[in-house]
Amino acid sequence: MTAPKFAGIIPPLCTPFHDDFTVDTASLRRHIEFQLDAGVHGIFVLGSSSEVAFLPDDQRRITVETAVDQVAGRVPVLAGCIDMTTLRVAEHVKTAEAAGADAIVVTAPYYTRTHVAEIDRHFRLLYERTSLPIFAYDIPMAVHTKLDRDLVLNLAADGVLAGLKDSSGDEAGFRMVLQQRRERGLEHFAVFTGSELLVDAALAQGADGAVPGLGNVDPVGYVLIYDHFRGGNPQAARREQERLLTLFSITDVAPPNRMGRGSAALGAFKASMKMRGFIDNAVMAPPQLPLNDDELLQIKGKLAEAGLL
Amino acid sequence: MTAPKFAGIIPPLCTPFHDDFTVDTASLRRHIEFQLDAGVHGIFVLGSSSEVAFLPDDQRRITVETAVDQVAGRVPVLAGCIDMTTLRVAEHVKTAEAAGADAIVVTAPYYTRTHVAEIDRHFRLLYERTSLPIFAYDIPMAVHTKLDRDLVLNLAADGVLAGLKDSSGDEAGFRMVLQQRRERGLEHFAVFTGSELLVDAALAQGADGAVPGLGNVDPVGYVLIYDHFRGGNPQAARREQERLLTLFSITDVAPPNRMGRGSAALGAFKASMKMRGFIDNAVMAPPQLPLNDDELLQIKGKLAEAGLL
Amino acid sequence: MTAPKFAGIIPPLCTPFHDDFTVDTASLRRHIEFQLDAGVHGIFVLGSSSEVAFLPDDQRRITVETAVDQVAGRVPVLAGCIDMTTLRVAEHVKTAEAAGADAIVVTAPYYTRTHVAEIDRHFRLLYERTSLPIFAYDIPMAVHTKLDRDLVLNLAADGVLAGLKDSSGDEAGFRMVLQQRRERGLEHFAVFTGSELLVDAALAQGADGAVPGLGNVDPVGYVLIYDHFRGGNPQAARREQERLLTLFSITDVAPPNRMGRGSAALGAFKASMKMRGFIDNAVMAPPQLPLNDDELLQIKGKLAEAGLL
Amino acid sequence: MTAPKFAGIIPPLCTPFHDDFTVDTASLRRHIEFQLDAGVHGIFVLGSSSEVAFLPDDQRRITVETAVDQVAGRVPVLAGCIDMTTLRVAEHVKTAEAAGADAIVVTAPYYTRTHVAEIDRHFRLLYERTSLPIFAYDIPMAVHTKLDRDLVLNLAADGVLAGLKDSSGDEAGFRMVLQQRRERGLEHFAVFTGSELLVDAALAQGADGAVPGLGNVDPVGYVLIYDHFRGGNPQAARREQERLLTLFSITDVAPPNRMGRGSAALGAFKASMKMRGFIDNAVMAPPQLPLNDDELLQIKGKLAEAGLL
Repeated sequence: MTAPKFAGIIPPLCTPFHDDFTVDTASLRRHIEFQLDAGVHGIFVLGSSSEVAFLPDDQRRITVETAVDQVAGRVPVLAGCIDMTTLRVAEHVKTAEAAGADAIVVTAPYYTRTHVAEIDRHFRLLYERTSLPIFAYDIPMAVHTKLDRDLVLNLAADGVLAGLKDSSGDEAGFRMVLQQRRERGLEHFAVFTGSELLVDAALAQGADGAVPGLGNVDPVGYVLIYDHFRGGNPQAARREQERLLTLFSITDVAPPNRMGRGSAALGAFKASMKMRGFIDNAVMAPPQLPLNDDELLQIKGKLAEAGLL
Repeated sequence: MTAPKFAGIIPPLCTPFHDDFTVDTASLRRHIEFQLDAGVHGIFVLGSSSEVAFLPDDQRRITVETAVDQVAGRVPVLAGCIDMTTLRVAEHVKTAEAAGADAIVVTAPYYTRTHVAEIDRHFRLLYERTSLPIFAYDIPMAVHTKLDRDLVLNLAADGVLAGLKDSSGDEAGFRMVLQQRRERGLEHFAVFTGSELLVDAALAQGADGAVPGLGNVDPVGYVLIYDHFRGGNPQAARREQERLLTLFSITDVAPPNRMGRGSAALGAFKASMKMRGFIDNAVMAPPQLPLNDDELLQIKGKLAEAGLL
Repeated sequence: MTAPKFAGIIPPLCTPFHDDFTVDTASLRRHIEFQLDAGVHGIFVLGSSSEVAFLPDDQRRITVETAVDQVAGRVPVLAGCIDMTTLRVAEHVKTAEAAGADAIVVTAPYYTRTHVAEIDRHFRLLYERTSLPIFAYDIPMAVHTKLDRDLVLNLAADGVLAGLKDSSGDEAGFRMVLQQRRERGLEHFAVFTGSELLVDAALAQGADGAVPGLGNVDPVGYVLIYDHFRGGNPQAARREQERLLTLFSITDVAPPNRMGRGSAALGAFKASMKMRGFIDNAVMAPPQLPLNDDELLQIKGKLAEAGLL
Repeated sequence: MTAPKFAGIIPPLCTPFHDDFTVDTASLRRHIEFQLDAGVHGIFVLGSSSEVAFLPDDQRRITVETAVDQVAGRVPVLAGCIDMTTLRVAEHVKTAEAAGADAIVVTAPYYTRTHVAEIDRHFRLLYERTSLPIFAYDIPMAVHTKLDRDLVLNLAADGVLAGLKDSSGDEAGFRMVLQQRRERGLEHFAVFTGSELLVDAALAQGADGAVPGLGNVDPVGYVLIYDHFRGGNPQAARREQERLLTLFSITDVAPPNRMGRGSAALGAFKASMKMRGFIDNAVMAPPQLPLNDDELLQIKGKLAEAGLL
C-alpha cells in the first residue's frame, strides 16, 4: 500500500481563446504560471471547465501539448479525454500520451443509453490500451449517468482506475467511497472532489485533494485551504473556504433566463481571469453567449470585495 | 410555398463492422441495395442507429462517402453531424459536404448545460457555414434537451431549418408542430417522425415521412405503410404498422439487467440484418455488449414469425 | 370475452369552487348537465383536472356525492381515489363506494420511492377491498413513476384492473398496450387515452375512448371525434381534433415564468367554463395563482375564434 | 438576533405498528424513552421515516398525540404536516396544533406541477393560519421539487419560516444557505441537515443540528457527534460519524431488484429497532415489502459489529 501519486489542489484550467476560437497559447502559458506561482499541485487540462466539449480535436491537442511543455514536469498534468464511447476516447488518449500527459481523465459513455456492465467494459478496454493512470470522472450533470460506487471501487481494486474526480454533487455517496476505500485497503486509489464549495469538508473526510473550477480565479485560496488543513488548522481552512463561497457568486451573475448555467459560470471565470491579468481575452466558444457589461461590472465588484483586484 | 424536398421512408442505417470495428463497406453497400430495392425514399447515415456515437471520425467519413457513392443519386442521402457543440459539429458538416451528402442532421448541444437561446445560435451559426439543408434532430433520450417548439418553427420560418426528425417521444408536441406548420404556412419545412411504432399515425396527422430504425430489418414494411397511406387506405397502413409493432419486440429480447437498451436494440437490428443476409457481421462497437445465443435464437424465431426468414 | 363496460368520451371534470374553496355544487350540477347534453359517455370526478390534489377530504366527498346524484345513472361515474399509498387510497375508495360511484381510478404510489413489485401489491390489495372496477391511472407527470406495461397487462389478465387511463405521454408504449391487449385476448380491459390532442389517433389504434381535460370546455368537440370515428369517417374526426388542437393553446396563455403549468391549464379551463356559462366562479384552490386580465382576454378571443362564445 | 430555538439531534421517528397497521402506541412510547435516554434534543414525528405517506389521518393524529403526551415537554416535538397542497396541509396543521406540537414541518406542494411563486404563496398562507413555527422540509426525492435558496432565505427573513430541514442531498446548496444566513443576519433561522452521513460536516459548516433517520437505531451515536463537536473535538465527531457510515449499510441489505429503496431502508430501521428492544413489531405499511430472513440475519450481524446488540 503506497501513498497516492496525486494529491492536493489540481485546478481544471479554462482554455483562453483568440477571437477565432483557436487556443491563445501565450495566455494559456501565462495562466499556468499564475497557477504554479500560487502553489497548485497539478493541473487538469481538457476538463469540463476547459470548454472541452466545444474544442475541435486539433485545439484539444494544442492545449495539452502547450500545457505539458509549459509545466515542464514541475507538477503532474492530467488530460481530459472526453468523448462519447470507447473508440473515440481512445483517440484522445493517444493524443494525451503523445503530448506527455501524466494521467488521463475519462467519463462514463454518453449520448448512448448505457449500463453499468458497459461502463465497466469501457474503463477496462481503455486500461488495456494505455499505460497512463486513468481517473474516472463522475459528472452526471454532463453525461447523465452517475458512476456506481461498487463499480468504481472494484475497478480501483483491480488497478484499472488510479483515481476518481467526483463532480457528481452526491456528497454522501462521495463519503461512502472514501469510507469503503479505507475499509478495502485501497489507499493508493486517489480520490478528489470536483466541488468548489466543499473542499475543506472533503479533505476532512479523507479526500486527497480537489479539482476546483474557481481555482482558475483564485488558486491561492484553494492552496491555502489545503495548507491549513495539512497544517492541522481546520478552522482556518473553513474560513478560507467560506471566503471562496462568497466569491463563487460570480457564477450566478448572469440570470438563468438569459443563458445556460455553463455559459454563466465559464463566462464569469474567464472574465475574472482577464480582469486579473491571467489571460488576454475572455471570449467563449459558440454557441455560448457572452456576459453583458452590467454583468461584467458586477463581477468586477465581487473580485474587488474579495481582494483580488 | 413549394412541396417539401424530402418525404417518405428514410431509414437510419445501421453501420456494419469488421471484427476490428472498421466499417465493412461491402456489407454497407449490400445493405443499401436491399433498402433501395425495398423502395425507400432516402437513407440517413450516421444517425443514432448507426452507432455514430461509437465511430471515430475516419470511420464516419468512410460511412458517408461509401453511402453517397453507392446510392449514386438514386435517392437523397442525409448525414448525421452528431457532436457536442458548434465548432465540433462544423467539422462533421465539412466532411458531409465533401462526401456529397444531400442534407445534414444536427442535434441540440449536449454534455454542456445549454439554453434555448444558445440552441438557436447553434443552428444559425451552422446555417451560415453550409449550403446543405439542415434537419434538426430532436432526441432528448441522447442529448437530454427537448427542442422547444417555437424555436424549431421560428428557425423553419427563417429558412435556417429545412426539416425536423422528431425522436422525442412527445407525440402531442409533434402534432402541435404539424398543426402550427400548417397555421404558419411553413409547408416547405419537412417533418419526419423518428418513431418505429407510430408511422401510420404520424402520416395521418400530416408528417412527410418517417425515419424508422426497424426499417433496417424490414424496409418493405415501412414502404408499404407509406404506400397504403398515400393510396388512401389507412386501414391497410394500420395493419402493416401493427405487424411491425409485433416485430419490434426483437429489441427487448436482451433483458435490462444485462445490457443497455441501446445495445439490446442495435444488437437485435444487426443480428436480424445478418440473418436476412443484408450484412456479414453483427458485431457492435465497444463498450456495447453482444447478444447471447439464446437471445439470437429468440430473434430468429420472431423474424420467422414475421415471414422475414 | 365481452365488450368493455366503459367506452367513449369521459371528461375529467373540473371542480367549481365558491370563494372559500368549498365546492359550488350548483355549478357542478350545471356543468354536468352541459356535459350530458353534449353526449359524453361517462364523467370522471376527482381526477387531476378536478384539483383533487387541492381538495380536503370532505370536499372530495361532496364532489363525488353531488356528481353521482346529478348524473342519476344516465352514464357511469368514475371517481379518482388519489393518494400516496394503499391505506390512504383505501379510505377514498370507501367514500367512492358509499357515494355510489361506478368505478375508481388509482395511481401508482407516490411521495415514497416505490418498486414495480410494490405497485403490483398496491393494486392487488385494493382489489381485495372493493367490488368496484379499478382503473389504473398512469400519470408520471404527477406521481413520477411510469406504470410498467407488463404489470398493467398482467393485472388486467388477473382481473384486478378493469381499465387504464393513460396520461403518460408515452404514445408508443400506449400503442404497445393496445397491441398486446389484442394478442393476449384482454378485450374486456378498457383502455383510455388521457391526451386531449391525440384522441382520433388513439381510437384508430384501438383505444376504447378518451378522458380529455379540454372536454370541460368543449365536450361537443370530443363527442364529435368519437362519433365520426365510429361512423367510419376518420377524416372528419381528424379535422375536429385539429380544431381542438388550436383551442388547446388556451392552456399556454399564462407564461411559464409566472406560474406553474397546472395553474395555467386549469385556470384556462375554469375561465373558459365560466365564460361559456357552465360555472359561476373560476377561482382555483391555493397555492395556485390566478390568470390576469390580459390572459383572460386572450382566452376569450380564442374561445370566440373557436365558435364557443 | 436571538439564538435558534431548535438545535441538536432531532431524530425523525419511525412509527411502530400492530399487525393491522394501527399505531402501536406502547412501542412508540418506549421508543421515545430510548431516544430521550440517549439525550436527543427533540423528536420529529410524521416525517418521511415515520411512513407518514402510508398513515391514514386518524393514525397520524394518534402518533402526534402519543408523542406529545409521552415527551411531556422534556424536548420539543416537531410534527410533519405532509400533504399535496395548502388546504390539505392546513388540516394536518390543525391536528398538530390540537395535539400540542411545538413546530410543524411542511414540504413544497407535490403531485401538481408547481412554481416558485406558488411555493412562496403556500408557505405564506400556512403562516397566516398558525402560530406554530414552520420548518420547510426540502426533500426533492419525495416531492420532486428542490426548494429555491432565495425563496427559503426570503421566507426566513420575513419570519414565515422558523427553520429548514434539508434532505435535498445538495450539500453545496446547503452550505450556501448557511453562508447566506450569516451574511443576511438570519441566525434565528434554524438550519438542520437531514443527512445521516454528513452530520459532522454540517455542524462544522454552521448547521444547528441534524434529523438523522439512522438515529432511530443508534441515537447515542448521533448525540455523541453533536457533543464531540460542541466540545471542540471534531476528530472524535468524525470517528463517530464514520462508525455510523458503516452501520448505515443496513439500508442496502435488501437489493434494488427486489423492493423500493424506501422499504429497504425503513425495513432495516424497524428490524433494528425491534432487535434492540425499542419496539415490538417491525411490520411496515402496505404496499411496502418485508425483508426476508437472510436479510434480517445480515442486519443482525451488522448491529452486532457496531456493538448495538
